[in-house]
Amino acid sequence: MTEIRAIKEEELQNYMQRMGVEARVAARILSQASSEQKKQALNAMAGAIREQAASILKANAADLEAAADKGLKASFVDRLTLNEDRVEAMAQGLEAIATFDDPVGSIIKAWDRPNGLTIKQVRTPLGVIGVIYESRPNVTADAGALCMMAGNAVILRGGSEGFHSNHAIHAALQAGLVNAGLPEKAIQLIATTNRDAVGEMLRGLDGNVDVIVPRGGKNLVGRVQKEARVPVFSHLEGLCHLYVDEDASLDMAVEIIHNAKLRRTGICGSVETVLIHEKIAKDYAPAILNKLAEDGCEIRGDEAICKLWPTAKQATAEDWVTEYLDKILSVCVVSSLDAATDHIAEYGSEHTDGIITQNQENAQKFFEKVDSAIVVHNASTQFADGGEFGMGAEIGIATGKMHARGPIGVEQLTSFQYHVLGTGQIRPA
Amino acid sequence: MTEIRAIKEEELQNYMQRMGVEARVAARILSQASSEQKKQALNAMAGAIREQAASILKANAADLEAAADKGLKASFVDRLTLNEDRVEAMAQGLEAIATFDDPVGSIIKAWDRPNGLTIKQVRTPLGVIGVIYESRPNVTADAGALCMMAGNAVILRGGSEGFHSNHAIHAALQAGLVNAGLPEKAIQLIATTNRDAVGEMLRGLDGNVDVIVPRGGKNLVGRVQKEARVPVFSHLEGLCHLYVDEDASLDMAVEIIHNAKLRRTGICGSVETVLIHEKIAKDYAPAILNKLAEDGCEIRGDEAICKLWPTAKQATAEDWVTEYLDKILSVCVVSSLDAATDHIAEYGSEHTDGIITQNQENAQKFFEKVDSAIVVHNASTQFADGGEFGMGAEIGIATGKMHARGPIGVEQLTSFQYHVLGTGQIRPA
Repeated sequence: MTEIRAIKEEELQNYMQRMGVEARVAARILSQASSEQKKQALNAMAGAIREQAASILKANAADLEAAADKGLKASFVDRLTLNEDRVEAMAQGLEAIATFDDPVGSIIKAWDRPNGLTIKQVRTPLGVIGVIYESRPNVTADAGALCMMAGNAVILRGGSEGFHSNHAIHAALQAGLVNAGLPEKAIQLIATTNRDAVGEMLRGLDGNVDVIVPRGGKNLVGRVQKEARVPVFSHLEGLCHLYVDEDASLDMAVEIIHNAKLRRTGICGSVETVLIHEKIAKDYAPAILNKLAEDGCEIRGDEAICKLWPTAKQATAEDWVTEYLDKILSVCVVSSLDAATDHIAEYGSEHTDGIITQNQENAQKFFEKVDSAIVVHNASTQFADGGEFGMGAEIGIATGKMHARGPIGVEQLTSFQYHVLGTGQIRPA
Repeated sequence: MTEIRAIKEEELQNYMQRMGVEARVAARILSQASSEQKKQALNAMAGAIREQAASILKANAADLEAAADKGLKASFVDRLTLNEDRVEAMAQGLEAIATFDDPVGSIIKAWDRPNGLTIKQVRTPLGVIGVIYESRPNVTADAGALCMMAGNAVILRGGSEGFHSNHAIHAALQAGLVNAGLPEKAIQLIATTNRDAVGEMLRGLDGNVDVIVPRGGKNLVGRVQKEARVPVFSHLEGLCHLYVDEDASLDMAVEIIHNAKLRRTGICGSVETVLIHEKIAKDYAPAILNKLAEDGCEIRGDEAICKLWPTAKQATAEDWVTEYLDKILSVCVVSSLDAATDHIAEYGSEHTDGIITQNQENAQKFFEKVDSAIVVHNASTQFADGGEFGMGAEIGIATGKMHARGPIGVEQLTSFQYHVLGTGQIRPA
């Protein structure tokens, strides 16, 4: 662990450029590593995490002490905190990734041409991935391992508050790489808290960063989206909607909305706005809202909702564009399915939006009209998650339309190439 | 056809911004258009091209006259020239696209989860595509139609030399859109030759351009790659290699290299450098090079080649990085397969590279080591083409690793979304 926290400005650029070059070299080697080698590295990383648990916790204690001195918020400190259980969970997370199918070399598609050529579209690594994250030290392990399993080199930049924890975890990851004969530089951690390091990374380190994945709050993601000169896989926010259709099952609507809002309010897949068709609003709204209010959820309704359910607060224009990430829900009555999809097009974030209906045709219409990464029929929006999708683990969720969209798992961290297999074919004039 | 060639600078930005907004609106409508509607539009476009052939040729005559006045090169004038056959070919190209499978709505993958959820990954349009091209007026029809078939709106910017031709063709495309009840603004052509319009487009028109595809020479592509603030699908050059392995069939090597170099020298998939394994160089090089020289190909060889085949010119360092696009080939002797892949990694353009060998293991090794969009075994590199891949038509070839790679056909012009289908599932705590 090189401690160069306070690197001088003139050295920073050299330091970062060198990191980029070393990542590119490591990526070349890693792209040809066998599945067995990568899995060996992951299991060895898990072992090293367990062996070095004491030093990881000690490093974390130093970070927590500094956080206490700075008077950081309790929720922040909770995210920063490691304990034996969380360290063990990290090790198990690495072992879980080792059980994934290796995407590299898998065939996406193969077909034959009339001239006898066989063409295969085969997955290859993307190259070098930059991950910029905030307080959770476990991202160091999760993100590093996931990128590596897809054959990529990764440059990690964690929040300064987790500096010591991240370095202790990173040391264990590198031990795992070395154990499997893979380059140590396949997973690098930026060893300075100088904020300009992020700027350097966003400029792409001379073409040596292929994509950046920001993990954190809206400020971080917004900065990355604005300043990055390389592709970014990200979502700025998850302003998710559920539309209760005129043909919805009432019981289902009550259960799904309660889960979508309150199971966990702080995740990007939690619902923030519910739209209720006017034909059933009188019967459905009270049942849906009572169930939420019982568990302490504040309701902000439009005029129609406030009439039907007077406990609601009057929503303001601001409410329709607010991702609460809290026990608050905005609710309004809409005149039709089209009005619902128009509302989603105007205020949504193209993350996850759903319809509750027993009418298949309406569900189909909703899916055609809503241009979000994930559209849901008769299920909770909280399923917007790589694990729930069966991808095993995700590095984040993307709302862009390029390359990765929705949960970003190992497969989304790959590119592809075409293999053209001939027996001497030449192209006719 | 609005003639606003000499638009004022202060108006240009407004004009371009408005175009972006209109494209976005059209894209929303087009994304929900049925396959039948899009196919009707394409066939109606073909009809309009034929009906308006006289006015298209008249417009082209005006462009050709201006080109003659400017003293433009013969090869340039040839690319700019339309005649009855070329107009008919354009119409047939549109009809061919109408026979393609519509990618929008097709299911890439579907699977069930243990909790009963069904998840489908479904193709959706990308949104708005900007196409910047040079002299060939047929790109107006090809690119416009291909983007539209994939459900995208497109903003076309043709070279100023083809201004009148492009507008005449564009009028026919819009007639086809209107015939099928689709928005005219789904295919827009920038009606000014002001070069700043390109700059505006490269900045993304306030988020209303999702991707840019440049079609043209290295200068154009280089500018787009450098200045674009949105994703770009492109290749800067096609510096393609063929490696003749020690286990190659001599006959096959002779035929494939002749075809890869001389079938057409001006396309990006033509081979520019041949690498020959030292073990067979003495026997193979003369046969391979004689066949090329017979047809007027100039050979620039390294020292070993010049000894084996004294007619060769001595290659300079410049030769290994030159895309000749001409009857010139650089050739060198390499000591191993690894030396060949190292050469390709150092000098190649990650476009198309191939190996000629009867040894399956060596082919596999080559494929693993060469990180190009297309890798070829025992076939001509001139198969690097969407049509030859069976994609029907392509808008270009991409060497980047994000989203599209290799030939860019209708499928590569789409994104996807996830459909999560439930029966009331909620996510457990």
